[in-house]
Amino acid sequence: MSESICPAIRRHAVLIKPPDRLTLESGLTLSPVEVTYETYGTLNSAGDNAILVCHALTGDAHAAGRYSPEDEIPGWWDDLIGPGKALDTDRYYVICSNVLGGCRGTTGPTSINPLTGQPHGADFPIVTIRDMVKLQKLLLDSLGVKRLVTVIGGSMGGMQVLEWAVTYPDFMASAIAMAVSAISTAQQIAFNDVGRRAIWLDPEWRGGHYYPGDGPTEGLSIARAVGTITYKSDHLWNERFGRRVEFAGDPFSRQGRFSIENYLAYQGEKLERRFDANSYLYLLRAMDLHNLGRGRTASGSWEEALETVSTRLLIVGINSDILYPTYQQHEMVCTLRRLKKEVEYFELDSPYGHDSFLIEFKIMNQAVAEFLDNL
Amino acid sequence: MSESICPAIRRHAVLIKPPDRLTLESGLTLSPVEVTYETYGTLNSAGDNAILVCHALTGDAHAAGRYSPEDEIPGWWDDLIGPGKALDTDRYYVICSNVLGGCRGTTGPTSINPLTGQPHGADFPIVTIRDMVKLQKLLLDSLGVKRLVTVIGGSMGGMQVLEWAVTYPDFMASAIAMAVSAISTAQQIAFNDVGRRAIWLDPEWRGGHYYPGDGPTEGLSIARAVGTITYKSDHLWNERFGRRVEFAGDPFSRQGRFSIENYLAYQGEKLERRFDANSYLYLLRAMDLHNLGRGRTASGSWEEALETVSTRLLIVGINSDILYPTYQQHEMVCTLRRLKKEVEYFELDSPYGHDSFLIEFKIMNQAVAEFLDNL
Repeated sequence: MSESICPAIRRHAVLIKPPDRLTLESGLTLSPVEVTYETYGTLNSAGDNAILVCHALTGDAHAAGRYSPEDEIPGWWDDLIGPGKALDTDRYYVICSNVLGGCRGTTGPTSINPLTGQPHGADFPIVTIRDMVKLQKLLLDSLGVKRLVTVIGGSMGGMQVLEWAVTYPDFMASAIAMAVSAISTAQQIAFNDVGRRAIWLDPEWRGGHYYPGDGPTEGLSIARAVGTITYKSDHLWNERFGRRVEFAGDPFSRQGRFSIENYLAYQGEKLERRFDANSYLYLLRAMDLHNLGRGRTASGSWEEALETVSTRLLIVGINSDILYPTYQQHEMVCTLRRLKKEVEYFELDSPYGHDSFLIEFKIMNQAVAEFLDNL
Repeated sequence: MSESICPAIRRHAVLIKPPDRLTLESGLTLSPVEVTYETYGTLNSAGDNAILVCHALTGDAHAAGRYSPEDEIPGWWDDLIGPGKALDTDRYYVICSNVLGGCRGTTGPTSINPLTGQPHGADFPIVTIRDMVKLQKLLLDSLGVKRLVTVIGGSMGGMQVLEWAVTYPDFMASAIAMAVSAISTAQQIAFNDVGRRAIWLDPEWRGGHYYPGDGPTEGLSIARAVGTITYKSDHLWNERFGRRVEFAGDPFSRQGRFSIENYLAYQGEKLERRFDANSYLYLLRAMDLHNLGRGRTASGSWEEALETVSTRLLIVGINSDILYPTYQQHEMVCTLRRLKKEVEYFELDSPYGHDSFLIEFKIMNQAVAEFLDNL
């Protein structure tokens, strides 16, 4: 598929300047608040041809294109964004911003706390998916967006999509949530707990105040390993490493390593180089706290919270997803149908697990384009 | 169900004394080698009514009964072992021993290295499932057992069962392997890798020489958390913690904890008190190296290794097992049938995941008793 959004341009905006402050769901406030984002395509004069793309845990604003022709890898959803693709930049103005609490240009624990002149570190306030969405709304307002064609994302990106649909039901014509649930489950929190504790255990974490050092790289790498296992599938591992897993070295020596161990270590090293461990902790907590129902109705039920949805929804499940199994999307779809909402369900048939929404572009282009064309 | 094996008696034997040495699969040797075991029932004069029970990763020799009537909890398979139960102690002489490399009375990293007068720690040699089985055979010989009615176990216990069937095919009338595969998969090794790295990361691990200190308790607790997640099922967590997971404290405070986090921490603390972290590392490695084919045939294939099996096999799979999914048992059964071996397959229908073989006693008693009665 063609890649024509080159160069991609990293943009930056200070959305909140002192004395203004961003009030978080916790009641705490933040100032200043900056956001890094990218846009592809052109906003029309009515301001209503925009699409917001929401990234997952370790994603960032660089969703499409290359900064220069020499860049080896384009943005993370490049196969879905561009002329003639599902998020067609000839028709739509596509926006992706780094989330609040992130470490890729938007205010987060690595940002300087103006009160101390030092990075916030572990003193950064706990942020939620709703806080991320609130900041995205400020960004869209500042860009002149009046209404979204759709808001789309998978995993943590899907959580943002669902919060958008509940919080700003009239601001969009549709919403597309992939590989996500309406509320985090104990198992999802448990996997995050393992990663979190590994980071905390790393002596280099230093209570969250490790800057300007490299920080808890091994803890972060272990957290990434847990994540990686749950983002893929047993089937994929068998396909990649074979049912006779390879071992490098003497199997009876402590130096010997299975190929899967080397692979996980390599994935960890890649993440260590581009991601901040504190930010990882904050985003894990934001995901753990994901609950469409919290504080919204007397019962706190996510089912009741969906009552406010007035947009057309496309819910995408992945049949090999071990982290957000399809019953969680089915639950949402059934609830939305019971509430007489307009909802479509698409089940992605793929052996690649949770990460399929970052891999199965051909089928996703079809499904998303068809949904948007029928709006 | 009645519990009548009281008191259970912990027994101990020095099976190898210097200058004799136990030669391991690695070619390294160990001496002395001691084993802790328990027996229930009486060996007949022919020595052929014995059943060997093999324990899983954190199990031990205490499979049934109570040491005193005040003991709150009986042995780990008490519901399966006793008069009138599937492993009927009125008929059978049941033996369970702590594995080589363990920390519950059998020689392992906590044992004193006679060369240094200190615990072996991380200088203990890497041991394999075959080494464990070799030591069990020595124990059975020393007890006067001539032939086994069956050898039975789940998970790491099931690995031992399979090695028994391949290594000593004429020594048993049957073998029962539960929730296990013929060779470890990349995903199983990956989960173990996370636990292993967490232990290594703990500063209290001290390169494996932490005795007489408590050692890497938090690292071990994290390893246990990964294990616990994979031993249960999403369904079980939802049943126990609800689809609206509870949170203790202020959700926006770092002190707040989800109930699943408290549960995992509690499970970790329980294990820390009774299990050695080095032993945990050695047993994880033994499981990672589990491969019925290693060194046995020119191809190294586990399928060909099964050719030597001459006993009747019962393979048990659990339909909610996320760690040893049923396709792994199906593979073995299909291979055994292709090789014209006598094999039965029983699929345990349970929502409780891998640990079901430690939980679903009613159905297991039926299935195991029926299999043994038909021998």
